[in-house]
Amino acid sequence: VCGVSPRLMRIESTANHRVKGVKRLHRGRERRAAGRTILEGPKLLEAAVDAGVVPVEVYTSERTAAVERAAAAGAAVSDVSPAVLAALSTTVEPQDPVAVVAIPAFAPPNAERTIVLVDVGDPGNMGTLIRSAVALGWRTAVMGGTDPWGPKVLRAAAGAHFAAPLINVESLDAIRDAGLSTVATIVQGGVRPEEVGAGAAVALLIGSEAHGLPAEIVDGSDWKVTIPMPGPAESLNVSIAGAIAMYALGRRE
Amino acid sequence: VCGVSPRLMRIESTANHRVKGVKRLHRGRERRAAGRTILEGPKLLEAAVDAGVVPVEVYTSERTAAVERAAAAGAAVSDVSPAVLAALSTTVEPQDPVAVVAIPAFAPPNAERTIVLVDVGDPGNMGTLIRSAVALGWRTAVMGGTDPWGPKVLRAAAGAHFAAPLINVESLDAIRDAGLSTVATIVQGGVRPEEVGAGAAVALLIGSEAHGLPAEIVDGSDWKVTIPMPGPAESLNVSIAGAIAMYALGRRE
Repeated sequence: VCGVSPRLMRIESTANHRVKGVKRLHRGRERRAAGRTILEGPKLLEAAVDAGVVPVEVYTSERTAAVERAAAAGAAVSDVSPAVLAALSTTVEPQDPVAVVAIPAFAPPNAERTIVLVDVGDPGNMGTLIRSAVALGWRTAVMGGTDPWGPKVLRAAAGAHFAAPLINVESLDAIRDAGLSTVATIVQGGVRPEEVGAGAAVALLIGSEAHGLPAEIVDGSDWKVTIPMPGPAESLNVSIAGAIAMYALGRRE
Repeated sequence: VCGVSPRLMRIESTANHRVKGVKRLHRGRERRAAGRTILEGPKLLEAAVDAGVVPVEVYTSERTAAVERAAAAGAAVSDVSPAVLAALSTTVEPQDPVAVVAIPAFAPPNAERTIVLVDVGDPGNMGTLIRSAVALGWRTAVMGGTDPWGPKVLRAAAGAHFAAPLINVESLDAIRDAGLSTVATIVQGGVRPEEVGAGAAVALLIGSEAHGLPAEIVDGSDWKVTIPMPGPAESLNVSIAGAIAMYALGRRE
């Protein structure tokens, strides 16, 4: 037909088998089985591409600059209807595009400054901790808790997942075997973070929002630190406590 | 009727005029006009009652301990159907109870350590900043941005609104007139927060997530501070940056 440029097939149906495959990645178990996760919106996609990640697939209803960059990097781009995009998205207000990326390999637990998230359950807090760690020059190890590659964690981390590899540990033995001193963060009774001995390679341990660190982990740690809270309410969000502790431990040297 | 204990009328209709009155408080303009806001869930209600606040009204579909405490403090309690509770609530998963409280008066800008939130637009960030300020012994002043008495701000602050009065300022003149030195937080080029002169009463200025502080405010400030970010990504959430700056400024003395 004259005047009509060639056009790749657009996916219009949410029943399409590829759409169904991406939607399975909304669940943590499926992400781990596939070794893949999804990135929603241009910012996360650009952070991944900036870090040298080639997305496996990109789904879009409008070819934005972020999509063209991913295509130039080698990603397969599929045009989809707005309804399909909404189905691929995990949010009430879908962000275009939705990209599928391979979850990078975990790094070994040998970084000099590592924050260990022990059973952190809130995705926003975990993502903010990963973001703060990257900015402050720390590595992040995850020990239980929510899936670090879930959509809400990725959103709160604002691309930090791609700036430094995450570490996955099943127990603190791996941390100690790597020669790191363990520093448990507790609500009261610890020393100021600045008082931890300078020079040592440290693993800062942060517990869950609801319960803090398990008693056996606190008991077995080399240092116990508490952020002084002189105010009338002794309560800091876990992502705030972790960031202040990282900053203060970085001020030892 | 024998065996049936007397029972107050339960509100079953979302068209009830009192229900409509509470729902109006979902909007910031209505909250300011009425001088009232709503608290959702037992934790915020208990934080308010702990601080000596007598809620004006409490709406509940189940008489929990928090509701009984509010009633004992003098609050008028109304039983409502689950559908009415859902209508009163601002969240997808309504928390029981929903309480109406008077917004406390703003305090004058004369606290020795005050963090000034300049056009902070994200309710979660504003609430987290208010919570951190209370824990770290700072007062919070709000200058533009989102309504500090909105439901999401209250939720993120976890009761901190009732631990110390908020300050409201239209311009930094009020801060300077109160004798506070202004310390602008900027992304790069400032001194470390610890290098700010010890002893001075300070107002820490934090800008919006998207734009930071306006240039004229940075230029006119007494100090400019930057949180060192040695890591590969120079980006901290505004609530993290504010908390670290408060902590570090507190370490001057």
